[in-house]
Amino acid sequence: MKQQLLEKLTEKQDRIIEIRRYLHAHPELSFQEENTAAYIANFYKGKDCDVRTNVGGHGVVVTIDSGKPGRTLAIRADFDALPIQEETGLPFASENPGVMHACGHDGHTAYMLILAETLIEMKNQLQGKIVVLHQPAEETPPGGAIAMIRDGCLDGVDEVLGIHVMSTMPTGEIAYREGAIQTGRASFKVKITGRGGHGSSPHMANDAIVATSEFVVALQTIISRRLNPFDVGSITIGSFDGKGSSNVIKDAVTLEGDVRAMTEATRTLIEKEIRRILDGLAVMFGVTYDLDYKNDYPVLVNDVALTEFVTKSLQETAIAEVTEITRCEPQPPSEDFAYYAQERPSCFFYVGAMPANGVFYPHHHPKFDINEASLLIAAKAMGAIVADYTTK
Amino acid sequence: MKQQLLEKLTEKQDRIIEIRRYLHAHPELSFQEENTAAYIANFYKGKDCDVRTNVGGHGVVVTIDSGKPGRTLAIRADFDALPIQEETGLPFASENPGVMHACGHDGHTAYMLILAETLIEMKNQLQGKIVVLHQPAEETPPGGAIAMIRDGCLDGVDEVLGIHVMSTMPTGEIAYREGAIQTGRASFKVKITGRGGHGSSPHMANDAIVATSEFVVALQTIISRRLNPFDVGSITIGSFDGKGSSNVIKDAVTLEGDVRAMTEATRTLIEKEIRRILDGLAVMFGVTYDLDYKNDYPVLVNDVALTEFVTKSLQETAIAEVTEITRCEPQPPSEDFAYYAQERPSCFFYVGAMPANGVFYPHHHPKFDINEASLLIAAKAMGAIVADYTTK
Amino acid sequence: MKQQLLEKLTEKQDRIIEIRRYLHAHPELSFQEENTAAYIANFYKGKDCDVRTNVGGHGVVVTIDSGKPGRTLAIRADFDALPIQEETGLPFASENPGVMHACGHDGHTAYMLILAETLIEMKNQLQGKIVVLHQPAEETPPGGAIAMIRDGCLDGVDEVLGIHVMSTMPTGEIAYREGAIQTGRASFKVKITGRGGHGSSPHMANDAIVATSEFVVALQTIISRRLNPFDVGSITIGSFDGKGSSNVIKDAVTLEGDVRAMTEATRTLIEKEIRRILDGLAVMFGVTYDLDYKNDYPVLVNDVALTEFVTKSLQETAIAEVTEITRCEPQPPSEDFAYYAQERPSCFFYVGAMPANGVFYPHHHPKFDINEASLLIAAKAMGAIVADYTTK
Amino acid sequence: MKQQLLEKLTEKQDRIIEIRRYLHAHPELSFQEENTAAYIANFYKGKDCDVRTNVGGHGVVVTIDSGKPGRTLAIRADFDALPIQEETGLPFASENPGVMHACGHDGHTAYMLILAETLIEMKNQLQGKIVVLHQPAEETPPGGAIAMIRDGCLDGVDEVLGIHVMSTMPTGEIAYREGAIQTGRASFKVKITGRGGHGSSPHMANDAIVATSEFVVALQTIISRRLNPFDVGSITIGSFDGKGSSNVIKDAVTLEGDVRAMTEATRTLIEKEIRRILDGLAVMFGVTYDLDYKNDYPVLVNDVALTEFVTKSLQETAIAEVTEITRCEPQPPSEDFAYYAQERPSCFFYVGAMPANGVFYPHHHPKFDINEASLLIAAKAMGAIVADYTTK
Repeated sequence: MKQQLLEKLTEKQDRIIEIRRYLHAHPELSFQEENTAAYIANFYKGKDCDVRTNVGGHGVVVTIDSGKPGRTLAIRADFDALPIQEETGLPFASENPGVMHACGHDGHTAYMLILAETLIEMKNQLQGKIVVLHQPAEETPPGGAIAMIRDGCLDGVDEVLGIHVMSTMPTGEIAYREGAIQTGRASFKVKITGRGGHGSSPHMANDAIVATSEFVVALQTIISRRLNPFDVGSITIGSFDGKGSSNVIKDAVTLEGDVRAMTEATRTLIEKEIRRILDGLAVMFGVTYDLDYKNDYPVLVNDVALTEFVTKSLQETAIAEVTEITRCEPQPPSEDFAYYAQERPSCFFYVGAMPANGVFYPHHHPKFDINEASLLIAAKAMGAIVADYTTK
Repeated sequence: MKQQLLEKLTEKQDRIIEIRRYLHAHPELSFQEENTAAYIANFYKGKDCDVRTNVGGHGVVVTIDSGKPGRTLAIRADFDALPIQEETGLPFASENPGVMHACGHDGHTAYMLILAETLIEMKNQLQGKIVVLHQPAEETPPGGAIAMIRDGCLDGVDEVLGIHVMSTMPTGEIAYREGAIQTGRASFKVKITGRGGHGSSPHMANDAIVATSEFVVALQTIISRRLNPFDVGSITIGSFDGKGSSNVIKDAVTLEGDVRAMTEATRTLIEKEIRRILDGLAVMFGVTYDLDYKNDYPVLVNDVALTEFVTKSLQETAIAEVTEITRCEPQPPSEDFAYYAQERPSCFFYVGAMPANGVFYPHHHPKFDINEASLLIAAKAMGAIVADYTTK
Repeated sequence: MKQQLLEKLTEKQDRIIEIRRYLHAHPELSFQEENTAAYIANFYKGKDCDVRTNVGGHGVVVTIDSGKPGRTLAIRADFDALPIQEETGLPFASENPGVMHACGHDGHTAYMLILAETLIEMKNQLQGKIVVLHQPAEETPPGGAIAMIRDGCLDGVDEVLGIHVMSTMPTGEIAYREGAIQTGRASFKVKITGRGGHGSSPHMANDAIVATSEFVVALQTIISRRLNPFDVGSITIGSFDGKGSSNVIKDAVTLEGDVRAMTEATRTLIEKEIRRILDGLAVMFGVTYDLDYKNDYPVLVNDVALTEFVTKSLQETAIAEVTEITRCEPQPPSEDFAYYAQERPSCFFYVGAMPANGVFYPHHHPKFDINEASLLIAAKAMGAIVADYTTK
Repeated sequence: MKQQLLEKLTEKQDRIIEIRRYLHAHPELSFQEENTAAYIANFYKGKDCDVRTNVGGHGVVVTIDSGKPGRTLAIRADFDALPIQEETGLPFASENPGVMHACGHDGHTAYMLILAETLIEMKNQLQGKIVVLHQPAEETPPGGAIAMIRDGCLDGVDEVLGIHVMSTMPTGEIAYREGAIQTGRASFKVKITGRGGHGSSPHMANDAIVATSEFVVALQTIISRRLNPFDVGSITIGSFDGKGSSNVIKDAVTLEGDVRAMTEATRTLIEKEIRRILDGLAVMFGVTYDLDYKNDYPVLVNDVALTEFVTKSLQETAIAEVTEITRCEPQPPSEDFAYYAQERPSCFFYVGAMPANGVFYPHHHPKFDINEASLLIAAKAMGAIVADYTTK
């Protein structure tokens, strides 16, 4: 049955690419994916499956029920785009100015639709159920996953799988890792307020720029001295908004920051230490502060047993287009697939999508592009695992 | 002759106030004082004096020649306004939105015109020459003085006097000080450039916000450790323009700063140390910097002998409206009268102008106002000194 | 043959303990282990092996030649003690005031001597050669390993094994890890020199304490911003020697620091960045510096294949006293066994030695002690691997 | 009478020098001046004056009562030495190893004894009383003045005068200044405690060296941003005692600091800000601190009227050896004469004592020396003022 599935997918490769190009030309920003959601829902029209729309927003959840007892596996593809002006020059480049599929979610959705269609066609050969999670808003916290979960998308689901295509990894490679695989994140905004005044009379004022600079400097000690050197964490102040006049002492400054960690314990520690340093700063310089701190995407942790199952399935299937299956290092970015992984044993893995000529741009770059051959690989890899899963 | 001059001024008090109110209603920004300059030039039409317009810009230089041998004394009044929206609610408030005489230069010009008129009337009783310097653009570096000097306004002049009215000092008081009396200033703009990148990968970027914060912190040591504690100096970073996104490491930050000092040696030292710290920063953090550093107004230094002459003249004249003549502390702000004082022995002194009800706003405040009674005092004080000077 | 070896070792357990207690009572500091080296050499007197003394200092290298062709395996035990005043109250506590076996090297040597003796007895059942490396001076850089290597201790050796007993791990457990397992280290001493002076005249001096404090603060950015958050590194300034008088500005300060990293690339990066910050500091504050920077122990990297062999051997042998064989996390301390691992495929692993009552003190503590039962486990574990190795 | 006094002093110049050399050879440290006090008391034996010894320690108070009504003027000379090993090579160099008259107090005492003797001889020509304050322990807080005051040395005294010889000022010059003339001082000691630990595990410890470095850096903002730039203040951390081992995180650091200010308000502000920064530091880094803060010598403030009297007296007397009488800048060091000035109108002034060849060493230098000709000048200057004072 698995071989038949793979063959069917091969036959449908043109349609995967066609869908991907259509989606690429019509990108929509996170939380605004109305047309994409409608396109997806429409795709399933007349197909023998259950389609639930507006799940936690623009989410679309498709259930493929074999009618036979068995476990329920969810497979997830995200479909939102980014606020980037495309510069690829592709014939099917974005028709939506300032919006671009610069992370490959168009490809995720394209392979997933065709894979789902094929699974529906073959569903009498399956066991249990397959739940396809078409998820919006991965790019923008709080993300689309959490709302879909609250809206029941994981009800009855045993385990969850997801794929990300990678423009930086050679096409043909698949990479995996058990345990913590992508960082958890927090973001914060803090306004530090002193008292303004004339530049020639600092004693009559309370210089917010000096106090805030001392804060940025003191912040470095969290990573350098409070973290276990074997743990992973970072704090970036990405915005120091203290624009003013040269001879006027600034009354207030607003910072925006970003926190990454590979364990929840580290993420919690960093938050605690940031708050502690702010409390100390307030006393030290007689300033006040107003902090808005948000933990957004958690650490993405792959289930060890499920990851082992995934890699074994991939190794044994020996998909022709796959040249290498490797254990990779954890990845710096955060991913809201992490919310599924908090709820159910999950596995998120990577499919190489580097253009054939070897020239690639990183994700979120205006010239980002993928090798479309990677989409058949993604479909076959996910298809093989589903086949093994439902028949194990 | 001095008493006659003072009496004439008393008689003309209404006209001083009238002129001041007209100017107050029609303020013009530094370097844009076309109408005010024309008003001044027009005032002298038909009067027995030499009027030179467009001196170094909108400057007007009036020479009152007694025809007799003697020394030449210049007396200066500035006439530009500020980019402030007036909130006084006065009947003669600014008719020019966003522009306001919030530093009393309207009053300076008003008393000076009437004093000049009176001196012209009495010029056969004088000796030598009086040069009236109507100066534009005091508020904005490089200021109007330096261009007027380059355009010859001090040619033949022996010494220079100037007055500033003070809303913060009781009307009736006159204050003086020999030596350094107002700070010298420099201003600078510096762009510090690292390399941008993703917030989760600091090692791939070079965080300009962290480097710049370390710079602001290190800068404090110039005042705390490089200056003689008995010297006066300050450095303010009034603008830290590092606005960006929370999760993107900032590539570059632009600072604007203000330097004050009470000696040229201190001003020079501070500049040298700022440059040194920037050089060190560049090495330390691998950043580059682009500095635009401008020394603008020098330290204003009153000539000791001339100041003694001024105070003796004031003390001996015993102007009825003057209640107290005191030696004051140096003043934090800077003043481009300092350029005259670099060229000729000069004396700049202060005339109290606090409103009669004791409620006052500092200079440059949208509700700034003066007691108009101070203008007659200014006219009489300057008049008495001129009288004593030309007849000594 | 392996079972016979293990039985012989069980029979000799008392002698292992006896030797360990003798060594414990007679500790010697790194590079001063004359008596211990003599004791070891004497132990082999009359035994059928080749003994080479004074190898790279006090090293003793014993070759057990089976006379048959085969590979050569080196097994290492270190024998130096620490400058600590023992507080255990043991009957066999140190008789050398201020010196103590507080890291278990007495136990390493004890089990190794008895294991070597037994292997000599059974050498006709072996193949190839066993080289026993009795190494001095592990505790103090540059360490004893590097000199022994230079003196030829690895000539003809194919692979190297080593064990460390662990007071913090339950007795009965054995722990291993492939790849980087203990940090590499560097240490440095830097004198930062300004210019002394009277506390009331900072401008006449150049405050070395302020410059050095800024250095310590700036140093934090190496870990927080220059390192990949997924890499391991730390920098500690353990000594800030700036003692002086309250009212005298300090002319010079001496720092001593410690660097750790889990890759050579990170270690190199940290050194480069420390030098860069010092160069920047010198410019920034007009100070000079004198840096003595020493990379001492490298990152200890276990060979993947050899580690697999070791763990397989241990798992298959099923030593009665061993309750668990686990893959552990990397360890923060550094170890000069790393030098062998740079030269030959090596494996260093850990044998639990927590006292039976569960009360334990960390290594280098004045009350440090081991469960002596761990020494038979060490002997058997190493013996089993040797047996499997020489007969594979 | 004044001329006769000056003549007598001229005749006694050799004795002044003789006494100075004796004292120079026999220096004693602050609070240990037993022999010097006995020498002084002995000097007055048989002279017609009242001598009170052990005043507030080793103080000697001599009252010269004219028997006639009038005001009472106190004149003060200090007599302690410093813990410095003399390197002058003078024939009368210190015979007390490690102790040296390196600040000229030997000279102060020598001229004062001879002046007092002469005043006693001429006391029937005086009016009122002269009180000679021979004060110990000027060099070491809390100083000798405060204890002598508590012990009644100023009872009945109207005003107080004092002189300091100055090796850095040409002999022949006398310098004065009204108002604040020498800084007030505070000194402090603070222990900052974190938690020790192993250098490779910063997260298990709390690095006191990093926290203390951040403190030293933050401290700079008090002078740079909290002080009025027109005020005088300095903070020096003269001792940063954080010696330890390179690879052990330091648990605690002890700092010693020195504070100077020219007004009590500034001194109070600095103390408040130091405490505030320490409170903030404790919160920021989770450390504790133990502060011992002592205000010692106050700002020395010369009474304006008395200073005017002193300078007028000096100008009118026209002492032959005096070449110049100048108004000087305030001096950075502190002086416990300030305590007298807090209790009574006082004037402290300076007598140039630069060696004739122009080669001079600063006070407290092992090669410090004075031009002995300055001592006759000091005696005559003080004598002339006393004469004018008692006969005014």
